[in-house]
Amino acid sequence: MTKVGRFFDKSARELFAEALFNAVNDAGGLKPQALVVGNMTSSVLMEQDSLAALLADYSGLRGIPAFKVEAACGSGGAALYAGFSLVKSGLVDVVAVGGVEKLTENVTAMTTKALAQAADAEYELFYGASFAGLNAMIARLYMDTYGYTREDLAYWPLRMHEYASYNPYAQLPRKTTLETILNSSVIADPLHLYDCAPIGDGAAVAILVRGEEKAREINRALGREVLVEIAGIGYATDSVDLGSRRDLLKMESSIIASRKAYKMAGIAEKSIDYVEVHDAFHITGYLALEAMGFAGEGEAPKLWKEGRFAKGDRPEVNFSGGLKARGHPVGATGIYQLAEAVMQIRGDFPGYKASSPEVAATHNVGGVATFSIVSVLRRAT
Amino acid sequence: MTKVGRFFDKSARELFAEALFNAVNDAGGLKPQALVVGNMTSSVLMEQDSLAALLADYSGLRGIPAFKVEAACGSGGAALYAGFSLVKSGLVDVVAVGGVEKLTENVTAMTTKALAQAADAEYELFYGASFAGLNAMIARLYMDTYGYTREDLAYWPLRMHEYASYNPYAQLPRKTTLETILNSSVIADPLHLYDCAPIGDGAAVAILVRGEEKAREINRALGREVLVEIAGIGYATDSVDLGSRRDLLKMESSIIASRKAYKMAGIAEKSIDYVEVHDAFHITGYLALEAMGFAGEGEAPKLWKEGRFAKGDRPEVNFSGGLKARGHPVGATGIYQLAEAVMQIRGDFPGYKASSPEVAATHNVGGVATFSIVSVLRRAT
Repeated sequence: MTKVGRFFDKSARELFAEALFNAVNDAGGLKPQALVVGNMTSSVLMEQDSLAALLADYSGLRGIPAFKVEAACGSGGAALYAGFSLVKSGLVDVVAVGGVEKLTENVTAMTTKALAQAADAEYELFYGASFAGLNAMIARLYMDTYGYTREDLAYWPLRMHEYASYNPYAQLPRKTTLETILNSSVIADPLHLYDCAPIGDGAAVAILVRGEEKAREINRALGREVLVEIAGIGYATDSVDLGSRRDLLKMESSIIASRKAYKMAGIAEKSIDYVEVHDAFHITGYLALEAMGFAGEGEAPKLWKEGRFAKGDRPEVNFSGGLKARGHPVGATGIYQLAEAVMQIRGDFPGYKASSPEVAATHNVGGVATFSIVSVLRRAT
Repeated sequence: MTKVGRFFDKSARELFAEALFNAVNDAGGLKPQALVVGNMTSSVLMEQDSLAALLADYSGLRGIPAFKVEAACGSGGAALYAGFSLVKSGLVDVVAVGGVEKLTENVTAMTTKALAQAADAEYELFYGASFAGLNAMIARLYMDTYGYTREDLAYWPLRMHEYASYNPYAQLPRKTTLETILNSSVIADPLHLYDCAPIGDGAAVAILVRGEEKAREINRALGREVLVEIAGIGYATDSVDLGSRRDLLKMESSIIASRKAYKMAGIAEKSIDYVEVHDAFHITGYLALEAMGFAGEGEAPKLWKEGRFAKGDRPEVNFSGGLKARGHPVGATGIYQLAEAVMQIRGDFPGYKASSPEVAATHNVGGVATFSIVSVLRRAT
């Protein structure tokens, strides 16, 4: 991973190459045979298509199969899914799955517009919907339905900022207070600034290797003991426009994707020790916990406020600081989550440490849960 | 496929659904379990991301895994590659691979700009390079190196227009003359209007099925005898900016991709009876024939003018009319080629018919051969 932040002095290709070199080093120098890149906004904010070949070439991998995958903010998770299938199919033995986003070089209005393109251009964007606006409507409905106040929900960003304060890769590595959160400026009522993930640049890459033997060989050479297996992966979609949804308070695509991933891994949600969930807004994080089976409908904020999902609980959630405070370089986020969960299992995450998880999951979402990609990772020693 | 053309009355989602329904009917009503969509310009020209979920939902497939793949004009081929790996890996048994592009609703200057984003934004686009301009430089170098005149190269579009006149899906289904081609207006010297593929809208979808038995079952139910197998697929990339290339007159990515595809299929180029090559410009078509091993360096226009690659020769080339005259709805083109080659093998292509090919190939390119994807298709009766 690169640190998430504002990098006026680093282009997307430079950020990506930095992450790719980190990943290749982490894999003992193993050279990727293919590259799948998650990215949402390069066409609009960078005027750049052909992105995957550009990044492969700049990273010294000219010639390999490379393509970009777009699933809005879930582009990183979608790249993981596509890359996983490339190695599982045997088309290649080693694939780099990555994501990169450069959001801070344009004026904020243009970035806001680019992100709003996750919505339906004809039925939502055309009428002025912003991405925060759509999520705000869901937050309002959730609060009204289950009787929560803004303060009740504010414990999510509070804890994310605390976790991020230990994470050297985080965009907002500083603790905050309930007062600061509640008094921050309105973005789209009831969402205030501190309820939303920041806009940031970043890149992350993971190297997937086909076959346990090859992976063990790399570990032996590096003197590393823990091996992490992708035990399951689930992917599901929903309508883009919210007007077509059956129930705005359920992340249906996340329900389906997580059940698929659990089934493929042969586990139930009870077996999951650690999770990185997609909290573009606090409401997204709460709904994710409910969709993944860790809380009943309408219960996540109550449980969270009571101290659940913290260190020592099961699952432990978002010790990276989440999208909220680690940051959300859109198309890279799914790969940040993967890297963080893998490091938590290996015990070498350089921030707030989980309690030796055996099984971890990542949950990446595109749009307002239009896309959901859930992976289950398992420790294999 | 849909017909390629200008469809002011049909949105991208409508075009795509039409193609998807055609494909599902062609597969005996089999429901896709996943969707991979090739598209280049939706972010810029339609202000639409989340494209794959949108198309899945609109086509009645809400919920299935769906993502967009971008590899410039090779996006369709890249979608084929990604979709092929999804079924080969066993993640799904039936996948819809498709492409859609809607290029004609904007002013031409904006479309030209969107297509130029296939070039390097920092090293080429920024300095005013257009996609036709970059290809024109290659055409000029090729003519100077091998001593060809504009007329020598004009036999490509001449024949493409003739073939397209029989193709009900073609954008330009009319014959033309050498005089018309040579006297058409300059686009980027030495490329004139008739040397270039037109700008058009269109969508194409193919259904890939895992396992011969399942495919035979569908054929039996439809009373269809011929089965088409994807016997090989090759994918390679090159630098985006032309300044970094080793040799502008060789499509290195196409050389690598075709050799990979031949090797996977266990064939040599001599075994290929029919090919659809990517002729965004006539020069692209000639270079493709050389890269795929069907002509020596600098020889393709000479052989072509002598009548090679026409009916009865081996391989027969671009009986669809090619990008030049069937049209080039960018991200869909690779899937048009696939559908055309499959129908030529099955004997039910509704246009100019190939001579009962057993083995066919498709060649799809993104950028100035920045991406190349080659498939080998084999008849299995």
